[in-house]
Amino acid sequence: MPPSYSAVQTEDTTLARYRTVRSLSEALVRGLSAEDQCVQSMPDASPAKWHLAHTTWFFERMILAKRPGYKPFDPRFDRLFNSYYLGLGTPFSRPERGLLTRPGADEVMAYRHHVDAAMEAALADDPALVELGLNHEQQHQELLLTDIKHAFSRNPLLPAYCAAEPTVVAEAPKLRYVEHPGGVVEIGHGGAGFAFDNEKPRHQVLLRPFKLASRLVTNGEYQSFIDHGGYHKAEYWLSDGWAMLQREEMWMPHYWLEDGMHFTLQGVRPRDPAEPVTHVSFFEAAAYAAWARKRLPTEFEWEAVAQTVPFKGRFLDLHALHPRAADDAVPAQMFGDVWQWTRSSYDPYPGFKTFEGPASEYNGKFMVGQVVLRGGSCATPEGHTRVSYRNFFPPAARWQFSGIRLAEDL
Amino acid sequence: MPPSYSAVQTEDTTLARYRTVRSLSEALVRGLSAEDQCVQSMPDASPAKWHLAHTTWFFERMILAKRPGYKPFDPRFDRLFNSYYLGLGTPFSRPERGLLTRPGADEVMAYRHHVDAAMEAALADDPALVELGLNHEQQHQELLLTDIKHAFSRNPLLPAYCAAEPTVVAEAPKLRYVEHPGGVVEIGHGGAGFAFDNEKPRHQVLLRPFKLASRLVTNGEYQSFIDHGGYHKAEYWLSDGWAMLQREEMWMPHYWLEDGMHFTLQGVRPRDPAEPVTHVSFFEAAAYAAWARKRLPTEFEWEAVAQTVPFKGRFLDLHALHPRAADDAVPAQMFGDVWQWTRSSYDPYPGFKTFEGPASEYNGKFMVGQVVLRGGSCATPEGHTRVSYRNFFPPAARWQFSGIRLAEDL
Amino acid sequence: MPPSYSAVQTEDTTLARYRTVRSLSEALVRGLSAEDQCVQSMPDASPAKWHLAHTTWFFERMILAKRPGYKPFDPRFDRLFNSYYLGLGTPFSRPERGLLTRPGADEVMAYRHHVDAAMEAALADDPALVELGLNHEQQHQELLLTDIKHAFSRNPLLPAYCAAEPTVVAEAPKLRYVEHPGGVVEIGHGGAGFAFDNEKPRHQVLLRPFKLASRLVTNGEYQSFIDHGGYHKAEYWLSDGWAMLQREEMWMPHYWLEDGMHFTLQGVRPRDPAEPVTHVSFFEAAAYAAWARKRLPTEFEWEAVAQTVPFKGRFLDLHALHPRAADDAVPAQMFGDVWQWTRSSYDPYPGFKTFEGPASEYNGKFMVGQVVLRGGSCATPEGHTRVSYRNFFPPAARWQFSGIRLAEDL
Amino acid sequence: MPPSYSAVQTEDTTLARYRTVRSLSEALVRGLSAEDQCVQSMPDASPAKWHLAHTTWFFERMILAKRPGYKPFDPRFDRLFNSYYLGLGTPFSRPERGLLTRPGADEVMAYRHHVDAAMEAALADDPALVELGLNHEQQHQELLLTDIKHAFSRNPLLPAYCAAEPTVVAEAPKLRYVEHPGGVVEIGHGGAGFAFDNEKPRHQVLLRPFKLASRLVTNGEYQSFIDHGGYHKAEYWLSDGWAMLQREEMWMPHYWLEDGMHFTLQGVRPRDPAEPVTHVSFFEAAAYAAWARKRLPTEFEWEAVAQTVPFKGRFLDLHALHPRAADDAVPAQMFGDVWQWTRSSYDPYPGFKTFEGPASEYNGKFMVGQVVLRGGSCATPEGHTRVSYRNFFPPAARWQFSGIRLAEDL
Repeated sequence: MPPSYSAVQTEDTTLARYRTVRSLSEALVRGLSAEDQCVQSMPDASPAKWHLAHTTWFFERMILAKRPGYKPFDPRFDRLFNSYYLGLGTPFSRPERGLLTRPGADEVMAYRHHVDAAMEAALADDPALVELGLNHEQQHQELLLTDIKHAFSRNPLLPAYCAAEPTVVAEAPKLRYVEHPGGVVEIGHGGAGFAFDNEKPRHQVLLRPFKLASRLVTNGEYQSFIDHGGYHKAEYWLSDGWAMLQREEMWMPHYWLEDGMHFTLQGVRPRDPAEPVTHVSFFEAAAYAAWARKRLPTEFEWEAVAQTVPFKGRFLDLHALHPRAADDAVPAQMFGDVWQWTRSSYDPYPGFKTFEGPASEYNGKFMVGQVVLRGGSCATPEGHTRVSYRNFFPPAARWQFSGIRLAEDL
Repeated sequence: MPPSYSAVQTEDTTLARYRTVRSLSEALVRGLSAEDQCVQSMPDASPAKWHLAHTTWFFERMILAKRPGYKPFDPRFDRLFNSYYLGLGTPFSRPERGLLTRPGADEVMAYRHHVDAAMEAALADDPALVELGLNHEQQHQELLLTDIKHAFSRNPLLPAYCAAEPTVVAEAPKLRYVEHPGGVVEIGHGGAGFAFDNEKPRHQVLLRPFKLASRLVTNGEYQSFIDHGGYHKAEYWLSDGWAMLQREEMWMPHYWLEDGMHFTLQGVRPRDPAEPVTHVSFFEAAAYAAWARKRLPTEFEWEAVAQTVPFKGRFLDLHALHPRAADDAVPAQMFGDVWQWTRSSYDPYPGFKTFEGPASEYNGKFMVGQVVLRGGSCATPEGHTRVSYRNFFPPAARWQFSGIRLAEDL
Repeated sequence: MPPSYSAVQTEDTTLARYRTVRSLSEALVRGLSAEDQCVQSMPDASPAKWHLAHTTWFFERMILAKRPGYKPFDPRFDRLFNSYYLGLGTPFSRPERGLLTRPGADEVMAYRHHVDAAMEAALADDPALVELGLNHEQQHQELLLTDIKHAFSRNPLLPAYCAAEPTVVAEAPKLRYVEHPGGVVEIGHGGAGFAFDNEKPRHQVLLRPFKLASRLVTNGEYQSFIDHGGYHKAEYWLSDGWAMLQREEMWMPHYWLEDGMHFTLQGVRPRDPAEPVTHVSFFEAAAYAAWARKRLPTEFEWEAVAQTVPFKGRFLDLHALHPRAADDAVPAQMFGDVWQWTRSSYDPYPGFKTFEGPASEYNGKFMVGQVVLRGGSCATPEGHTRVSYRNFFPPAARWQFSGIRLAEDL
Repeated sequence: MPPSYSAVQTEDTTLARYRTVRSLSEALVRGLSAEDQCVQSMPDASPAKWHLAHTTWFFERMILAKRPGYKPFDPRFDRLFNSYYLGLGTPFSRPERGLLTRPGADEVMAYRHHVDAAMEAALADDPALVELGLNHEQQHQELLLTDIKHAFSRNPLLPAYCAAEPTVVAEAPKLRYVEHPGGVVEIGHGGAGFAFDNEKPRHQVLLRPFKLASRLVTNGEYQSFIDHGGYHKAEYWLSDGWAMLQREEMWMPHYWLEDGMHFTLQGVRPRDPAEPVTHVSFFEAAAYAAWARKRLPTEFEWEAVAQTVPFKGRFLDLHALHPRAADDAVPAQMFGDVWQWTRSSYDPYPGFKTFEGPASEYNGKFMVGQVVLRGGSCATPEGHTRVSYRNFFPPAARWQFSGIRLAEDL
C-alpha cells in the first residue's frame, strides 16, 4: 500500500495553521505592485500572482471540487493555474505564465478569499490532503521569493524587495570537521507528522566513516577560489559544468556584481566575506570542493549528521531574507540560511511509492537528472522543513538560495 | 544637403497639436490595468507602458536635453526607454522590455507629465523636431494597439480591449479593376508639410500600364483560397513562405479561430465575409495573389493610383479598431482599414538622405529585408499618413493590420 | 504568354557544348578525395558529389523521364538529388545532404555517365531545356567551388584546393568615377541567346545621373575601413548588419586570418592589398560605402554602365580561382573577379513571368529578402554570365566571392 | 592514494592482446567506404575514421610522447584527435568531427601503423596505461558500430553494414523472477585484472529483498505497451521524458519502422517479437516498467544478482551485431545482447578516486545527469566487460543498444 501524506493536527489547530500559512503568502506580495506580481523573468520562474493563484487552485481542485455544490470561482482558472498535473487536464504553457495580465492581482486575491471561505468549512474533508496543500503553499512561498529576486535582478533599476538591514561586519568561525563513524544509519521520514512521499520509506543505508564541515563555505573562501583562477581551470569542473561556463561566460555566483557588491532582496549590498556563498550551481559547488581538495557530502551523510543536531536555523524572516554568518555551534548552519548541494542525484528511495491520487505527480516524476539539496534556506518558511527533507534542482540552477558544505573521507 | 523634417504650423496650433497627440496616447491605455501595460508577448512587441515612456523619452532626449537647466525626470530612464538609437547610448535589451515592472504605470504617467510641462515651453526650440516627435508618437500609438492585441490573444481568457460594436452584416461590392496607363509618375513627398525621410526625395518613376483592384480582398474571398487548399499547395508560395508554413504549422490568418470566429480588439467575434482579410503576412498576400492569378501592386503603382483619389478612410477610432467592408467608391479602401502589402522591397529612393542628427537612425538603417506596405489602417491615427507614406515590415510579420489589394498587368 | 528559355545553337554545337559543360564539372572534383566530395560544412552549402548528382538529376528528371523506354539509373535518386522542386516530389532534407555517404563518389560518376549517354541522343528533344540544364550546371560549378572552399576552411589543416600561384605584387590603379547622365535605359535581357526568366522582360527604367567607381574596392582600402574602427561604429551599419556583428563577433571578411593572411582555394596566402576585397556580406559592403561617404549602385545603374563596356573579365580558371588586381581599364573589373553587391533588393521585373513547367520554381520563388549581385566572379564559368545576369543572396551571405563597387549621385 | 589501472599480463600476452584489439578496429571498417568513415550524423556520434585516429592518439599522446626520440606522425593530429582531455590541450570541436575530410581514411590507417610500430617497442613502458588504452579502444569499437548504425539510418537508402543472417523465428521463454534476499553485498571491482576507476572502490551496499526478471523485455512485450497507448499516457512517464515525447513526436523505439520492420546493422529486417527490445531511452524503459507495474533494478541489485551468474553472453560478432532471443537460463541475458538501463544515476562510489595523470578525465567528470547501464551488448567486444562494469548515458540517449530488465520489491 502506498504511503499517504499523514496529518496529526486537530481541527482547531488545522484552522489556525491554514490561516497562518495562507496569510503569509499574502504578506509576501504586500510590497509588490500589480506589475511586479505579473512578471515572469525566465521559464523556470513564475509570477508572484501565479504562485498565489496556483496554491489556491490546489485546494480548489483537490478538495473543494469534490464537495457537492461547490461553485468554482471561475471555471477557466482550472487550466490557467494547473502547474503540471497532466492527470487533471492540460496545463497552460509554463513559459507564458507572465502573459496572464488577466485575471489581475485584485481578482486573484478575490479568488483566494473565495477559496479560503469554502476551505474553512472543508478542512476536515481530507486532513492529509489539506496538510499537503499547506506544505505545497510553503514551497511556493519560497519560490515566490526566489522568482521575484530573479525578476528584479533583470531590471537595470535593481529594486529592493524589502528594506535593508544595518550592515554588521562579522567574522566566520574557523572551519572544523565533524567526524562520523559510518555504519548503518536510518534515512528518511519514519515518524508521525507530515512528510513528502520522496522522503519515504525510512530505510537503512550503510555509510563509510566521514567528516562533515562545521559550517558553510563563505563568500570570502569562495572569493579565494575565484582569485586562484577557479573559473578558468577545467580540472576542477564536471564536464557539463565546464561547458556551461564557456557557453554562458560565467565567472562568479549568480547575483555577484562588480566592486564587492551583490544583489539581494534588500537591494544592492556589499558582500560580507563571512556570510555563506549562495546562488551557486551544483557545478560550482563541486568545483569549489575539488579546488579545496574536499568533496560534497552525500545526502545520506548529511542526514546522518543532521539527526544529531538540534533543529534550529535562520528561516524565512520578512525583514532579512538573506543568509548570515555562522555562529559558533559545531556543526553550524545545518538548517536554514542556504540549501546545501549534496553529491547525491535525486533517485527514489528503495521501496518508494508516490502519493495516491492526483498528488501522485507531486515528486516522483521529477526523479532523474536532478541533484538533492538539504537543509532549507533563509527563504524557507519556518516549520516547513525536516531533517529528512529532500529538495532537488538541476545541476545548473542558480536562482535558489543554494550554497556549499564540504565533506571528506575519514 | 540632406532633407530636414519640416513643419508648417504656428506656435498655437503646435501647442494644440502637441496636446492632442499626447493625450491620445493616454486615452489608449485608459482601459488597461497596470499589468496589461507591462506585458510583452513577443520580442517584436513592446509593453504599452514602454510605448508611453519611449515616446516621452524622444522629446526629453532630443529636445529638452539641450535646454540649459532642464532636469531629467530620472536619469536612469535614458537607457531604459531608448529604443534603438545607438548614437545616443546603449539601449536596454529589446526582448526584455516586459521585465520592467519598475517604473510602474503611475510613475511613467508622471514622467509624461513632467516632460509635457517642460515641452510646452520648448515647442519653438526646434519645431521640425517637435513635429517628428509627434509623428513618432503616432506610430507608437498604432503599435501600442497591435501589441496589446497580440498580448491579449495569448491569454486563454481572450479579453477584449474595447466594447463590441453591434454586428452589421454587409456585402462587399463587386471586385473591379481601375486601369492606369503607366508612364512617368512623380513618386514620394514633395510639397510642404511633414514627411519622413524615407518618402523623399520626390522623383520620377517609369511605370508600365496596369490595373489595380477596386477594393481589398475580403475574408470571404480569402476563405475560398483556404478552401481550395491554398495553404497546402507549394506552387503559390514564395520559398521562405512555404518553409514558414511547414515550420509553424500555419493554415489561416493570425487571429482566425475555429468556427468562423476571430479575435479582435473587441474580443472574439464572428468573421464578417465582407470585411477585408487582415493579419496576413506578405507571404500569404503573395500566395493569395498567385492563386487568384493576379499579383500585388508595386508601391509605385499603388501611389500612382492613390494620388488620384480623395484622401479619406477609416482610421483609428477608439470605438471600433477594426476594418470594415468597402463602400462603393472605386477604388475604395485606399486609405485606412488595413495596410496593403506591396510587391516592393523597402529600398531607399534615389537620392535618399537620412534625417540629420540623432534622428538619422529613424528609417534608413532598416532598409533591407523588409517589404513596403501602404495606406494606413484602422489603428493608424487620423492625420498621420499621406499618399507618400511608406510603412515596412519583414515579410513574415502578421501582428499588424495588414491585408491585400490585387493588381494586374494591363 | 510566359517567356521560354530559348536556345540558338545547332545540334552539333549543342553536343559539343553539352560535353564541355559536363566535363568541366568532373574536372572540378579531380583533386578531391571521395571524402572531400561528401562533406557538407553548413546548411547553405552542398557536397561536391551532390552537385555532380543534382545537375545530372536535372537532365534525367526534366528531359529523359519523358522519353519512352528510358530506364532511370536508380529510381531512389529521384528524391535524393531533387533540390527544391516541390512540384516534382519531396526533396531530401537540405541540411542532411552531407549524410549521403551512399551512393559513393564512384557511383555518382557512373550515374553521370549513364545520363550522359542517354542525353546525347536526347539533345534535340527540348533544346531550350537542355540549354537551361547546362546553365544550371554552370551555376552549380561555381557553388561547388565556394562550398568546398567553405568546407576546407573549417578543417584546421586548411588544405588547398589547387596549387598556389606565384605571388605577384601589383598596385591597384587610382580610383576614379565614371559618370552616367541617367535618363531612360533599357534593362534586362532582350535579344537572342539564353537568359534566365529573372532577367526578363527587357524594360525601361528611369535613372537619375550618377557616377560609378572605376574599379572594385581593394583589400587595402577595406583594411583602412577596419583600421578606422569600421566594425565598431554602429553609424555605418544597417540595423540587421550591426546585430549580426554583435551576435557573431565578426570583425573582418570571412576568410581573413591574422597577420595579413587569408584562406583561398590555393591555401593560406598573404593578402594582396591591391586585390579586390571578397567574401564580404551585403551588410559589410553597405557599411564600407557609408564609411567612404559613397553608396552602392542599384542594379539598374550597374547595368546601364555595363552595357557600355566590352564583355570580358577573369572567370573560372582552374589554375587561379582567385580575384586579381584591376588593370587600367576605366571602368575595370565589371565582369569576373568578384560579384558586386548592389543596392537593389531582388524583386521581379515589371511583367516578370516564371519559366513554364517544372522550371517555374527556378528563380521566382526566391524573390524576397535577398539582394542582387552583378558581374560574375573568378569562380563563374566563362560564358555563363551576361550584362543582364542577376545573381542574388541573402544580405548576410559571405561564402560567395562577393565584393564591393561604389557609386555616387552626380 | 588513488587507484591505478592495473594490468596482470606478461609482455608476450600483452603484445598479442595489443595486436588483437588493434586489428579488430581495422576489421570493423573493412566494409566501409572512405565516405562512410568520414560522416558524422549527430554531435553525439563520431566518424569511424575519427574513432580509428582517436584511439591511436591515446597511445601516442599518453605513452609514446614520453619516449625520447619519438617523432609524431603529424603534430597537428594532437589537436584533431584529442576528444575531451582539456589537460592535454584544446580539443577540436566535437560536432565538427565530420568536417575532417583530411586526413583521409588511408592516411589515418598509416597513422595507426606508425603508432603501432612504435608501440610494440613500448608496451612495457607503462603496462597499466597500455591496458587502459586497449580498454579505451574497445569502448570506441562499440561506439563505432552504434555511430555508423545511426549514420546509415539517416540515409534514405538504408544501407546494411553487414550481411543479413537467416531469419529464425524463436519464442521467448516465459518471464520469471529471480529472488534476492537483500542484505549487505559487496559492490564494485576488487580483485586483480583491469577495471575502470568508476567501478572502484569495492564497497558494501545494504539492499532490501527484491526480485529480478529472468530475461530482457522483448519486442513483443514492448509492442503491447505501445498498443495499450503507452506513448500517449502521461502517467507512465517521467516529466522530462513526457516533454521529450511531445517535442520530438516519438512513439516507438529509435530504429523501428512501419509494418513490423526495423533498421539493423544487417539492413531493414522484420522485427522478431522474441528478441529483446533495444534502442530505447531510459525514459522509455522507466515508462514501460511503470506500465507493467514493475520497476527498473538499481545498479546494485543488478550487480548482486550478476555476481551469482556465469559470465557469458552474446557479445560483438561481426556476422550478427544484433541481439537475440533469450535462452532458458534463469536468469538469462545478464551479459551481452543489450545494455540494461538501471534506476541508478551515475554517481561516484564512496571513496571514489579518479585515475592519476591525464587519464583522470576519463570517467569522473561525467558523473552527473547520466544513468547507469549494465551488462554489455551485442556490440561490446568479447572480454571487455565485467560484472562490475558501469556504462552511462544521458536518459534520452537511444542510439546505443539499450534495453530493459524489470525488477520488483519482494
